[in-house]
Formats: sequence, C-alpha cells, structure tokens
Amino acid sequence: MTSPAPVTRAYRRLSVEERRTQLLAAALTLFAHRPPDEISLDDVAGAAGVSRPLVYRYFPGGKQQLYETALRSAADELELCFAEPTAGPPTERLARVLDRYLVFVDEHDAGFSALLRGGSVAETSRTTAIVDEVRRAAAEHVLVHLGVTRPGLRLRMMVRTWIAAVEAASLIWLDEGKQPPSDELRDWLVDHLIALLAATATTDEETASAVKDLLAREVPGGPVGRLARGVGPVVSGAEHLL
Amino acid sequence: MTSPAPVTRAYRRLSVEERRTQLLAAALTLFAHRPPDEISLDDVAGAAGVSRPLVYRYFPGGKQQLYETALRSAADELELCFAEPTAGPPTERLARVLDRYLVFVDEHDAGFSALLRGGSVAETSRTTAIVDEVRRAAAEHVLVHLGVTRPGLRLRMMVRTWIAAVEAASLIWLDEGKQPPSDELRDWLVDHLIALLAATATTDEETASAVKDLLAREVPGGPVGRLARGVGPVVSGAEHLL
Repeated sequence: MTSPAPVTRAYRRLSVEERRTQLLAAALTLFAHRPPDEISLDDVAGAAGVSRPLVYRYFPGGKQQLYETALRSAADELELCFAEPTAGPPTERLARVLDRYLVFVDEHDAGFSALLRGGSVAETSRTTAIVDEVRRAAAEHVLVHLGVTRPGLRLRMMVRTWIAAVEAASLIWLDEGKQPPSDELRDWLVDHLIALLAATATTDEETASAVKDLLAREVPGGPVGRLARGVGPVVSGAEHLL
Repeated sequence: MTSPAPVTRAYRRLSVEERRTQLLAAALTLFAHRPPDEISLDDVAGAAGVSRPLVYRYFPGGKQQLYETALRSAADELELCFAEPTAGPPTERLARVLDRYLVFVDEHDAGFSALLRGGSVAETSRTTAIVDEVRRAAAEHVLVHLGVTRPGLRLRMMVRTWIAAVEAASLIWLDEGKQPPSDELRDWLVDHLIALLAATATTDEETASAVKDLLAREVPGGPVGRLARGVGPVVSGAEHLL
C-alpha cells in the first residue's frame, strides 16, 4: 500500500511539456478510435494514468478543449502526409500520397468517421474550420502536382470535387470493414482522378492543357496507360454512339 | 387602433393544420436562405405575422423543432426530385434529375450550405440522419437507372462516391456565385459519372456489365458519344503510354 505505483512515479517525473504531450497522446488515441460523444474526461485521465483534476489543470476547457487540440494535432499529421516532391510521374506521386492518407484513415478510423459524418456535440465552427483547412491544403497539393498555380473555376471545382470523393470513399471503406484492400482503393482513386481530368478536359481548356503536360510526364506501364488500355474494351459497345 | 390588422384576421381564420403549415412555410423560407444559427424564433414569428407564444404552441421544442421539421420537409421535397421513369437513355434521365436537384440547391442556397458544411448548433444526430437518408435515396435511384438491384462493393462505393462529388460540386457552385451556369454544371456531373463508370468498369466486372447495358440504351448525339469524341483529342498525347 505504501510503495508508489509506477504510474505515480512517472507522474512526478514529467515536465509540464511532457505531461501535456502525454495527455494529448492519450486523448488522440481515444478520439481516433471512438466517437467524441462516447469519451469522457475520466477516460482520458484513466488512459493517461492521472487524476481528472490534473487533466483539467492542463486543459481547463475540459473535453472540448482536449478534442479540439487532438483534432488540430491529427490535422497537422494528415497535412504532413500530403507533402511529396514534384519529381517523377504525377500519378505515382499521387499514389504515394494516397497510400499515406489511407494509413492515416486506417489509424484514426472511428474518430475520422465521427468527425466527417457530423452530428456530434463536439463539432463546432472551430472543428469544421480545421477540417476545411485540411481539404484546402489537399486541393492545393493536387494543383501543385498538376502544375497549376492559379486554377480557373472549372479546374478548381474538379480538384475539390475529387477531394470530396476521396473523403466519401474513405468513409465507405471504413463502413465496409476496410474493403477493398487499401492498394485497390488507392488505384481506383487514382483512376478516378485521371478519368475526371479527361472528362473535364473535353470542355475546359485549362484542364486540357494541364492534362497534356501531365501525360508528357507519365511513363509507360503507369496508371494512365493501364486505364486507357482498360477503357478500350469497355467502350467498344459505344460505337453506335460516335 | 380598434380595427383589426389583416394579419390578425388571417390569424383567427386559420385551422390548426393551416396554421402549422403556415408557420412551417415561414420557417422553411428563413432556413433556406440563412444559416440556422442566425435565425431566432422571433424571426419565424415575425415572418408568419404571429406572436412568439403562438409559435411555441405549435412547436413546443422551439427553434430546434422548427428546424428539424423544416429540414424533414425539405428532404421530402428533394427526394421527390429524384423520381424519374426508367425509360429512355439513362444519361438523359440523370440529366433531368440533376436539373431538378440544382433548382432545389438554388432555392435553398444558404440553408443547403449551412446544413452540409456542419458546425452549426442546430446540427444533431437527427439532422445528420435525415441528410444520410437523402444520400441513400439518391444512391438507390442511380442504381435503379443503372439497372442494378443488388450492387457489389465496388459499384456501391462508386455510386455513393459520385453522390458525394455532386454534393461537393453543389457547395462549390454556391460559393462561386452559382457559376458555371447550372446547365454546364449538370453536363459536367453527367460526364463525371460516365467517366467514373468507365474507369471503374476496367477493374470491376459488375460495373463493366452495367456499362455494357447502359451503352445499349444510349442514343447517338447523347452525352456518352459527346464525351467519347471529346476524350479522343485529349488522350492523343498518351500514345507513348500505351
């Protein structure tokens, strides 16, 4: 009864910054895998092995402050996934970013779902602003790899629409028990962007020009060639329409 | 001072059901064009020309109940837009549904944005459930026109992803001052689905079969032929990839 538990000893040794980091890590783990409405401050205190008043000392705003801080931290982590050098075939860069993104979705499954589905009491204009900032960052990264700095309306709409499609596909992927396997989902999302670029290019000159530049940077055996070869047989039934 | 105002006379004449309908119509108009957080019960009472206590008599749950009832009513109206006979070329049916949908978005602009962007205190698990129900209904209608009754995972994911893309494009369209013109947006959304179907068909047999059936029901001069012809020049720079 008198010998201190390991947790208590750890408690005494941590600096203010270390303690804050530890509490945030505990909160992040909880919020990643359960909807925020199901998590209490006691859960966070329990997971960190500290008392509830100690959590309040570091996060006086209680659960809402912890949730928003954890979300900020997760958003920063996700934005880091987007960074990709602008060298090599654009579709390969995109595939690498999507791989990292899908690992993030996998590791934050229930929290990712709860956040994007909405309807939680923890959702505020601040949490919505954080999510929107991540979406904007994602769109800007895609435009960089398309070689476009000041996109017109149609291209801007195309990229943001595809970002929304990726988000929706991720939520469905989680709903479906993470099926199909993430590499199949990644390839399909790449195909989706190529198909959308090709379709948009038929009526928008700026997109047509971006597609032309993109095709010049692609290599044989990559997703563009694979998709183009695959579409041939699919549309062979469309000759009466041409 | 003693002669009754027209509003007061109308007040006395309305039946319970008429009064409820009138209050709901006033609420719908307000919630369609302003975010729910900016609307008070006094605004609804003022728009209907009645007193605040009268609004409470019909909607004891106050603003939240009015919002949810208005949302329910708007969702029913939107679902009616989806109904389309299963005759004629599928892309023409889709275009007609999208035209009605875009009129709905136009007429409910600020409310539509506020609802789908989230972060409002009026958003609850009930409002989220209503929105999800509309999304599910939309996906089911698309599948009916694709001639699919029990879609597999990939086709289901494709349709739901396209629905999310339509939603995102609508929000961007509102942000951009309703540009491009709604007929251009409609055509682009149809092209988006055709492109996505073609891309998905390259790796999913069920989608390939649905595309084959769809192509047989299309007519020359329709969106499929137009898109296929337009994509030719766009991908002419891709010969080194084949």
